[in-house]
Amino acid sequence: MSFSFKLLGDHTAFGPRRGRITTSHGTIETPVFMPVGTQATVKTLSPEELRAVGAQIILGNTYHLYLRPGAELVREAGGLHSFMSWDRPILTDSGGFQVFSLAKLRKISEEGVSFRSHLDGSLHFLTPERVMAIENALGADIIMCFDECIPYPADYAYARNSTALTTRWARRCQQAHGRLEEQALFGIVQGGMYADLRRESAASLVELDFPGYAIGGLSVGEPKELMLEMLEAAVPELPVDKPRYLMGVGSLDYVVEAIDRGVDMFDCVLPTRLARHGTALTASGRLVVKNAEYARDFSPLDAACDCNVCQTFTRAYIRHLFAAREILGLRLVSYHNLYFMLKVMSEIRQAIDVGQFAEIKKKYSSYR
Amino acid sequence: MSFSFKLLGDHTAFGPRRGRITTSHGTIETPVFMPVGTQATVKTLSPEELRAVGAQIILGNTYHLYLRPGAELVREAGGLHSFMSWDRPILTDSGGFQVFSLAKLRKISEEGVSFRSHLDGSLHFLTPERVMAIENALGADIIMCFDECIPYPADYAYARNSTALTTRWARRCQQAHGRLEEQALFGIVQGGMYADLRRESAASLVELDFPGYAIGGLSVGEPKELMLEMLEAAVPELPVDKPRYLMGVGSLDYVVEAIDRGVDMFDCVLPTRLARHGTALTASGRLVVKNAEYARDFSPLDAACDCNVCQTFTRAYIRHLFAAREILGLRLVSYHNLYFMLKVMSEIRQAIDVGQFAEIKKKYSSYR
Repeated sequence: MSFSFKLLGDHTAFGPRRGRITTSHGTIETPVFMPVGTQATVKTLSPEELRAVGAQIILGNTYHLYLRPGAELVREAGGLHSFMSWDRPILTDSGGFQVFSLAKLRKISEEGVSFRSHLDGSLHFLTPERVMAIENALGADIIMCFDECIPYPADYAYARNSTALTTRWARRCQQAHGRLEEQALFGIVQGGMYADLRRESAASLVELDFPGYAIGGLSVGEPKELMLEMLEAAVPELPVDKPRYLMGVGSLDYVVEAIDRGVDMFDCVLPTRLARHGTALTASGRLVVKNAEYARDFSPLDAACDCNVCQTFTRAYIRHLFAAREILGLRLVSYHNLYFMLKVMSEIRQAIDVGQFAEIKKKYSSYR
Repeated sequence: MSFSFKLLGDHTAFGPRRGRITTSHGTIETPVFMPVGTQATVKTLSPEELRAVGAQIILGNTYHLYLRPGAELVREAGGLHSFMSWDRPILTDSGGFQVFSLAKLRKISEEGVSFRSHLDGSLHFLTPERVMAIENALGADIIMCFDECIPYPADYAYARNSTALTTRWARRCQQAHGRLEEQALFGIVQGGMYADLRRESAASLVELDFPGYAIGGLSVGEPKELMLEMLEAAVPELPVDKPRYLMGVGSLDYVVEAIDRGVDMFDCVLPTRLARHGTALTASGRLVVKNAEYARDFSPLDAACDCNVCQTFTRAYIRHLFAAREILGLRLVSYHNLYFMLKVMSEIRQAIDVGQFAEIKKKYSSYR
């Protein structure tokens, strides 16, 4: 199998750690942040720009790609890498979260989930087997099991039954996975906001022996402390030598806490979504560059940043682009925000390398 | 003065010709096509990409920049070049056409034009002197006189009076121009669709001795033949050794006819506007790439094109981006269309250099 994970240097069992994932499309230094390319494009940016900002791996959303342009078309194009011209690693989620958050009239049974498309109302039925066929067609380096994302709040009985279903589906995914040698299938820990269910979910998935494990169903509206409690319950059940991926989390104050608890991988639309709403991530916090106060500010988005945007354009110009609804504005802030996010991740890796994670955690633990 | 124009090689008095404009921001080989950067950005593209597609000079719209972000702000930024980070030449129009085509409740007097902004309905009054102050603040290499764009159709009396007004305004512009040494001010030939008025307009402007001359008020709905007739009336009145700029024309079938009649400069939103509507310019004509027929077409936009987009992405992918309303689609087709347009212009220049303009004119004279 072309997928492997290696821990680098010293590490405690469940503390911050440096690692390296190897895939047939290249290596990924962890902890890693994965920009989200929902519809086979990280919004507003080109693959060339994603390389320039330092993206090691990007994420594609199976739910969206299944609906449009369709998995079969992507397969005909030679897979997602070829379709979107991205030659570094890709991870696809399973659609479980989007069926929960976007689709209409969702009905869950043992067999799978029926729902109506958020695009045109058309009826669909996804099962673990169907999702594997789709993810096999998309051809990402890392693929995720089909799971049920538990609503928050949910009562204990619902969470217990749903978590058990996700585990049964994980087994079915493993059996249906047609490209075991080429695509690493990760299990997804659920369990709602119940520590015992999180432990149980992790332990049952570990029995199935996946090459990596995700923690799903967090950052769905619960308090930060509760999220961290769930991480603390789940992570110690997971094998030390497999990558751990906290799904949908990308706010730096959360990321440093999760890294401190042994998480290796993150994805989130936050940097690019904030960008499109005119908010830049800077060394001194969020900057709403579209605000009128920056109309005559001829300094860069972030004076501490060495990205191409900060070397070239001013806040005043970018603010003008937003005021005039010009697409270049969305591009420039998206580029900068991803550059910033990925650079911080690189700093975090260096800090772990030299045993100074505590300092960098302190720096970002109240980042807003 | 930092502006000069030199004719290169053989040329007839009013036939196709090769030239070179020199400005303090670099040289421009003519005939030239100028991409339009209305609001201090060529829509969807970065300055870096504009250089990559071969843009020698771009156009900014005074009307838009005056309304937003305002000429004073651009001046504070160090001028338009600095504001938008474009270090090659820039031309600004005078706003005459936009006041005519976009503004509301326009009222024209000898003194100037009052109108309401298309953005917020606010009341404005532009005079030749005010427009010069604005264009001086914007700081483009080539600036245009404030003119009245005559509606089509217009009766003879209206066209005659309006053309005389434009000439009087041209004189006032010349007198008010505060940066004569740094910015070349072009006069604009009007005259509606009356050949004698076109000749008269050109002749009166030539008396004022501008460093270049534009032909305005064409391609406003009249038949192609009528436009060419107006060109044939105006151009012979203009000095051979000064550049001639046909405003707002960028359809290749028109461009080759105008070059054949001695025109040197063109601008048009067509390549970028078509792009944003999902239409690519290709060697075999226009291709509506957003159409369903390209959903599984894994060939490039234009097999004959060596641009970065055609080397990297397929019609199927670009079609998907349009279907999914992803910004990257707008970017890719905009990039390709400008590359295509500027490459054709380069071919045209080479053809003139070797005395084979007739062949290339034939190739593009029915381009659609």
